[in-house]
Amino acid sequence: MAEEPPAGLLDPLFASEAMTAIFSDRGRLQGMLDFEAALARAEAEVGLIPAAAVAPIAAAAKAERLNVAALARQAAEAGIPTIPLVKQLTALVAAKDPAAARFVHWGATSQDVMDTGLVLQIGKGIAVLKPELQRLSAALARLAESQSRTPMIGRTWLQHAVPVTFGLKAAGWLDALERCRLRLEEAGEAARVLQFGGAAGTLATLGVRGLEVAEVLARTLDLRLPALPWHASPDRLVALAAALALLVGVLGKMARDLSLMMQVEVAEAFEPSAPGRGGSSTMPHKRNPAASAVALASAIRVPGLVATLLAAMPQEHERGLGGWQAEWETLPKTFLLASGSLRAMTEAMEGIRLDPRRMRANIDATRGLVMAEAVMMALAEKIGRLEAHDLVEAACHRAVAEGAHLKDVLAKDPAVAAELDAGQLARLFAPEAYLGAAEEFVQRVLAAYREKKE
Amino acid sequence: MAEEPPAGLLDPLFASEAMTAIFSDRGRLQGMLDFEAALARAEAEVGLIPAAAVAPIAAAAKAERLNVAALARQAAEAGIPTIPLVKQLTALVAAKDPAAARFVHWGATSQDVMDTGLVLQIGKGIAVLKPELQRLSAALARLAESQSRTPMIGRTWLQHAVPVTFGLKAAGWLDALERCRLRLEEAGEAARVLQFGGAAGTLATLGVRGLEVAEVLARTLDLRLPALPWHASPDRLVALAAALALLVGVLGKMARDLSLMMQVEVAEAFEPSAPGRGGSSTMPHKRNPAASAVALASAIRVPGLVATLLAAMPQEHERGLGGWQAEWETLPKTFLLASGSLRAMTEAMEGIRLDPRRMRANIDATRGLVMAEAVMMALAEKIGRLEAHDLVEAACHRAVAEGAHLKDVLAKDPAVAAELDAGQLARLFAPEAYLGAAEEFVQRVLAAYREKKE
Amino acid sequence: MAEEPPAGLLDPLFASEAMTAIFSDRGRLQGMLDFEAALARAEAEVGLIPAAAVAPIAAAAKAERLNVAALARQAAEAGIPTIPLVKQLTALVAAKDPAAARFVHWGATSQDVMDTGLVLQIGKGIAVLKPELQRLSAALARLAESQSRTPMIGRTWLQHAVPVTFGLKAAGWLDALERCRLRLEEAGEAARVLQFGGAAGTLATLGVRGLEVAEVLARTLDLRLPALPWHASPDRLVALAAALALLVGVLGKMARDLSLMMQVEVAEAFEPSAPGRGGSSTMPHKRNPAASAVALASAIRVPGLVATLLAAMPQEHERGLGGWQAEWETLPKTFLLASGSLRAMTEAMEGIRLDPRRMRANIDATRGLVMAEAVMMALAEKIGRLEAHDLVEAACHRAVAEGAHLKDVLAKDPAVAAELDAGQLARLFAPEAYLGAAEEFVQRVLAAYREKKE
Amino acid sequence: MAEEPPAGLLDPLFASEAMTAIFSDRGRLQGMLDFEAALARAEAEVGLIPAAAVAPIAAAAKAERLNVAALARQAAEAGIPTIPLVKQLTALVAAKDPAAARFVHWGATSQDVMDTGLVLQIGKGIAVLKPELQRLSAALARLAESQSRTPMIGRTWLQHAVPVTFGLKAAGWLDALERCRLRLEEAGEAARVLQFGGAAGTLATLGVRGLEVAEVLARTLDLRLPALPWHASPDRLVALAAALALLVGVLGKMARDLSLMMQVEVAEAFEPSAPGRGGSSTMPHKRNPAASAVALASAIRVPGLVATLLAAMPQEHERGLGGWQAEWETLPKTFLLASGSLRAMTEAMEGIRLDPRRMRANIDATRGLVMAEAVMMALAEKIGRLEAHDLVEAACHRAVAEGAHLKDVLAKDPAVAAELDAGQLARLFAPEAYLGAAEEFVQRVLAAYREKKE
Repeated sequence: MAEEPPAGLLDPLFASEAMTAIFSDRGRLQGMLDFEAALARAEAEVGLIPAAAVAPIAAAAKAERLNVAALARQAAEAGIPTIPLVKQLTALVAAKDPAAARFVHWGATSQDVMDTGLVLQIGKGIAVLKPELQRLSAALARLAESQSRTPMIGRTWLQHAVPVTFGLKAAGWLDALERCRLRLEEAGEAARVLQFGGAAGTLATLGVRGLEVAEVLARTLDLRLPALPWHASPDRLVALAAALALLVGVLGKMARDLSLMMQVEVAEAFEPSAPGRGGSSTMPHKRNPAASAVALASAIRVPGLVATLLAAMPQEHERGLGGWQAEWETLPKTFLLASGSLRAMTEAMEGIRLDPRRMRANIDATRGLVMAEAVMMALAEKIGRLEAHDLVEAACHRAVAEGAHLKDVLAKDPAVAAELDAGQLARLFAPEAYLGAAEEFVQRVLAAYREKKE
Repeated sequence: MAEEPPAGLLDPLFASEAMTAIFSDRGRLQGMLDFEAALARAEAEVGLIPAAAVAPIAAAAKAERLNVAALARQAAEAGIPTIPLVKQLTALVAAKDPAAARFVHWGATSQDVMDTGLVLQIGKGIAVLKPELQRLSAALARLAESQSRTPMIGRTWLQHAVPVTFGLKAAGWLDALERCRLRLEEAGEAARVLQFGGAAGTLATLGVRGLEVAEVLARTLDLRLPALPWHASPDRLVALAAALALLVGVLGKMARDLSLMMQVEVAEAFEPSAPGRGGSSTMPHKRNPAASAVALASAIRVPGLVATLLAAMPQEHERGLGGWQAEWETLPKTFLLASGSLRAMTEAMEGIRLDPRRMRANIDATRGLVMAEAVMMALAEKIGRLEAHDLVEAACHRAVAEGAHLKDVLAKDPAVAAELDAGQLARLFAPEAYLGAAEEFVQRVLAAYREKKE
Repeated sequence: MAEEPPAGLLDPLFASEAMTAIFSDRGRLQGMLDFEAALARAEAEVGLIPAAAVAPIAAAAKAERLNVAALARQAAEAGIPTIPLVKQLTALVAAKDPAAARFVHWGATSQDVMDTGLVLQIGKGIAVLKPELQRLSAALARLAESQSRTPMIGRTWLQHAVPVTFGLKAAGWLDALERCRLRLEEAGEAARVLQFGGAAGTLATLGVRGLEVAEVLARTLDLRLPALPWHASPDRLVALAAALALLVGVLGKMARDLSLMMQVEVAEAFEPSAPGRGGSSTMPHKRNPAASAVALASAIRVPGLVATLLAAMPQEHERGLGGWQAEWETLPKTFLLASGSLRAMTEAMEGIRLDPRRMRANIDATRGLVMAEAVMMALAEKIGRLEAHDLVEAACHRAVAEGAHLKDVLAKDPAVAAELDAGQLARLFAPEAYLGAAEEFVQRVLAAYREKKE
Repeated sequence: MAEEPPAGLLDPLFASEAMTAIFSDRGRLQGMLDFEAALARAEAEVGLIPAAAVAPIAAAAKAERLNVAALARQAAEAGIPTIPLVKQLTALVAAKDPAAARFVHWGATSQDVMDTGLVLQIGKGIAVLKPELQRLSAALARLAESQSRTPMIGRTWLQHAVPVTFGLKAAGWLDALERCRLRLEEAGEAARVLQFGGAAGTLATLGVRGLEVAEVLARTLDLRLPALPWHASPDRLVALAAALALLVGVLGKMARDLSLMMQVEVAEAFEPSAPGRGGSSTMPHKRNPAASAVALASAIRVPGLVATLLAAMPQEHERGLGGWQAEWETLPKTFLLASGSLRAMTEAMEGIRLDPRRMRANIDATRGLVMAEAVMMALAEKIGRLEAHDLVEAACHRAVAEGAHLKDVLAKDPAVAAELDAGQLARLFAPEAYLGAAEEFVQRVLAAYREKKE
């Protein structure tokens, strides 16, 4: 009856299921065990250890065979999880093949195990994000395309500015998201490096065969071989975390926009609703922007994690004291939060409901004020920018004070009437006629998107 | 055979066991259930709900009775764990007493449940820290007292400065720790406030009885009743997190000092060793400062968590979107890391091994250079500070260049010899004679410590 | 013709004028010079240096007499500004009185000068904040009192919840602000401590007279004398920065609320307008919430500064390498940003324009949906909370689908009609009747405010 | 007599002179004025404004012609510096050519001016960093090459591990620095984009000519034309800040290593000394690692700035409220601190003094303990890894307890003697023979460095 409980109660809320599995404790342990198995394989291939040792080690290197509770306790004693891990692994191998047990963890050091294990988890994490990013980009591209002529008010400083289109807004999201996708791909690829240096990064334990083992090991794990071990230089991992944080920031911007549009008084766009989604324990009418809440919460949390990783960089000598240990939970958490934010925004954008009529009504709500710039620019061509600005600004104040439509106020102004007749004035107040390059911008973004996709 | 695995593999390393239990998922759920049980009790006491509803609700309000896996899944759907929590609790009550089930969660809102639940966890967390803080203070007081006359070199900018005593260093740690203890006590007390406001902080659901219920509820839970609900004003919680972070910073400073003294070349003080503690998977001679690593890692991680909580403060209207949710895991993590850092430093300081002979040898290692200031001050009284500084500085350069003892170089300098004879010079080079007010400072700190303790 | 340019182009925007003066370079230098002058005075008082040295040193200790450009250049060479400062000061004294020049900076160290100088600046900074905090509290108290019965919609998760009052919202701001005021007072007082320890915190340069000098020095500067020097334990300063950050967070929350209410579609409250304030370079109709922008920008920036100060805490031995230096610009910036945010919100709240009619209209905009809870609670008393929730939720969905008023939908529902007649139903839809304890909460906050004020 | 004072007293310490000039207020204003001049040029080229307007506008667009004090004051009133900037510029143009003044700032918006101005500053900032990065890389390459066979002890967890070479350490620094150089180049190039969208990103003010103007404008300023304006999507700038932070982190790691090696008791490497550099105001013998202090301070400060920029990303709609404003001083500060850290480490590494004899002595200081792994690996081939580990670990404990050399303890152990004779044992204790692939790693890094350089 009872389902398997998740690693954490709130993980299903703030992280995707796939990412939670990858960055679970079991995922971490399996990453480290995969390193140990591959190490045995590589060392056997170059003849450092007997070929017969490989199979028993590989067979034992399964996270589900470990006693995690004991391991956790002993890790606290040892100050690091690898020491008890290697002990348990050795014991498991020894139970089947005492001779093979002698070659477990041969020549490696804790950081080789932990960092390469983490790199393997990262590879899986990136692989999980990629299709989700494509899904979200596709959803945004559909929105940009289908709504490229749907006028809505542009807002700056949280105030009405001039009209834009919903398609332009979606294209802006898409453009930024595609940059994130590229950054993640590059940073992910750059981070796909083997960590293998032995005690202090010289591979001295392996004598003259160290480099050979490293090459085979990298190939076995499908990782790149770096120029040298990077024990206390985690910049590639931190750069990846920064790329994730930029994604989370871009998703947070989408969530900010969406949740603002979903306000009752604005009512231009809505997260999809579903039974049990975004409800309130006490207010039956509530439809909370639950997806936006997840993305915004992540956008608040992830910057602190990246700052932590950056602050941890000045690590001492060949392995840090404190800085390295600070990475152990922080980089995984960055992945988890990014995955949850991405899932939330993907679901929100795939199911978004739009109300173009309300968008249009909101443009009109200020009785022409948002078209003031259109009029000002038309006047500016005739009387100069600054004079036009002052003249229209005064008209705006009058319109607000009198509750009148700006068009009517302007029509009565002799200085305006001298330059623009009624028909010209009316045309200046049509939002569709004042969208500038919006459509072209959308098409450029879509073209770039399609090109990259292919 | 298998022990109960911990919430997380690395929790036993980075957090104390007691704190892990308090801030586990079960701890969180029990906090919320304690609120629900107390709410029923309070509402029955003022006559809002039938007295008969209390016992069934209280009986069902046990975290171990919940289906956590289902709850986690549904929390992700609802965007919040309280909605499924209330549903499960209602179902549990209904199974025994359908009439009572009608009064579960009566008039409360999700934030009342979550925030008050968190406040209850916090209270327990503070209670767990207090005796540990006292243990560490006691250990530091013992060190300050017993070593108040043990000279060691003072170091500034990571360079030798002038002699201090190990007791002075320990007194400095103690003095800062005692400030942290006070801050935590005050911030903890300030945060012990009921959150109870209903949907938007008016308690409207309870009609005229709201305040009465709030008063009884606060009393029942042993919390203070705030002037008004604080739905979107979590400053008391953030202030508490800041107090924890200050503690973590102070502990990090101890760990920094200790780990630097423990360097092979310095070798003045050592973390206690124990079988399996701080070993290396590949280097049998290694004794890692594993406790310092924990405290330093926490000191790197916690600032980012506090920044997150501060950044989350500008929450929208009566309940935030993103900001509130960002607190859910962040404040607990701050407690966890603080507890692990405190435990690590308590164990380290209780078992610290000192090498006073090495401390003395390190003072002497620079052939008198660190006594330069003593000489300079003696000369300054006669020839002025700036001239004395330049004269002694030149002598230092000569001593370094010639590999000579500064005393000998100075003795040969006619400008010095004119002012100081050989006996005077020799006395100036005794570190014990140049400790200034160190002893008095230690005694003042100890006196303040003892006074507070009583 | 040209006015004196400010320290920085954006300082007048992000900081108050008074605070900019205090934390200017001149302010910093004067703080350090005040220390030097007081040191001479104290040392003369206890007879360590000749009384005749005091006046020349005090006369020279004026920031405007320094060559700041040379000082800045030499500070970069020395790695610290105190060394060239002492040199310039000594030269200035020597020009008038060579004998006095010998006693400049007698027995002190760089950190004594810089940290005590900073503490003196801090004292002035706190003094500048206090009356401004009182002004803002007074403005909020007026709002809370005068609007305690002005209904507006409460909003949670950026969605309409149930009615509150504008007075309740203002009372919530006030309550949080008063906590900040108290915290700042306490943290400011705690930070008012002399730093005076000499090279490594022993005052050895002063021999047996060190403590005497310290006591007189503290008294002279009106600072408290700490139990011991705190060279590498800046927790009191960091705690003060955290108190400032909490204030900035609370101000950011006010700005968030105000700017959301000021949205065109919401239009419930507005920042005061003034010629040239919050205008746009291109849109004459724009009224930007410029004060809120300042407060929100500070609320985004200050958390990173506090994280920096916290991360800088694990400082090495008797004076840190990197950590101490990281404080030099960070704590001042925290004060500057706090002052700008406070000024912005004070001006905004003192001049806020409210539109109670629009507040009321926004309550009604959802055709009764926001009164759903009121109806649910009334029904819950009769049929149980969960059943009532489901019934009303269904009615809400119907009301939305049909564009009907919830009252009308409910009136047609036989299950509802069986419990509530038309008159009862109508009364349940009056927001004024569903404000719960709002008025009482406001009065409690006001009472606490008045009590503290006295 | 008085030199021109710097923007800030501490700027010469924490930032390079060239970068300070670029990111000074004058630099900021000139960036904005360069945009205005180029805009006029572009609009004239496409025929939107008269060609005759270009020269007067360009002539007036000089930062030194502005009244900065008035501008700063008015910026605070307006909430933004562009509005008074445009006013002053217009007035300057009008004074010479009233007709041209009508076309100042034609069709642009504040964010176009500020963000493109910033992008222009950034371009200059990157250009300043590039040669400095090459200088530092060259210095590190020289160190890696010349010291590739200089043994020193490797240190992990701040404890002796096994021997490495100083060349390997330098190669590790170089390898990481070269990654930073590449990242900065890519992020700098990606950020070289025009911001030009008008009021809300549609260029509506320019009618059908908007895109044409944008293209010419981009070409004129030598910036790339983005697919669409990026008003509220600053991810390219934040990514650049992250790249700077990674550089600062890598430099901080160098500084950490260097300052630890420079400790009196370690004494393996030293920052260059110069008159007045790193001295103490009170201790004439002090040589502070002043360059390392700068780099470490920056490494503590910059993470908070990056967190700020990341946290500012969820900006509202077409221009943010608070988030955008939070960038104005934060990104410039990131550049400034990065420049100071880079300059400090370049000077330190170009002038570093090494003591290879002391490095060797430190290896020997533990009487063979650091060669334990070498022995263990030799034994492991014969008796298995775990058994060998336990045997050698026990010998290490004995050696420490008895103050004996590990070699002698092992020689007496029959279990060891059975496997290794005296000659074999002696060879195992030569550090030069236990450097593994260190030399090869250095050569690989150098090869990659030379390849990239060409």
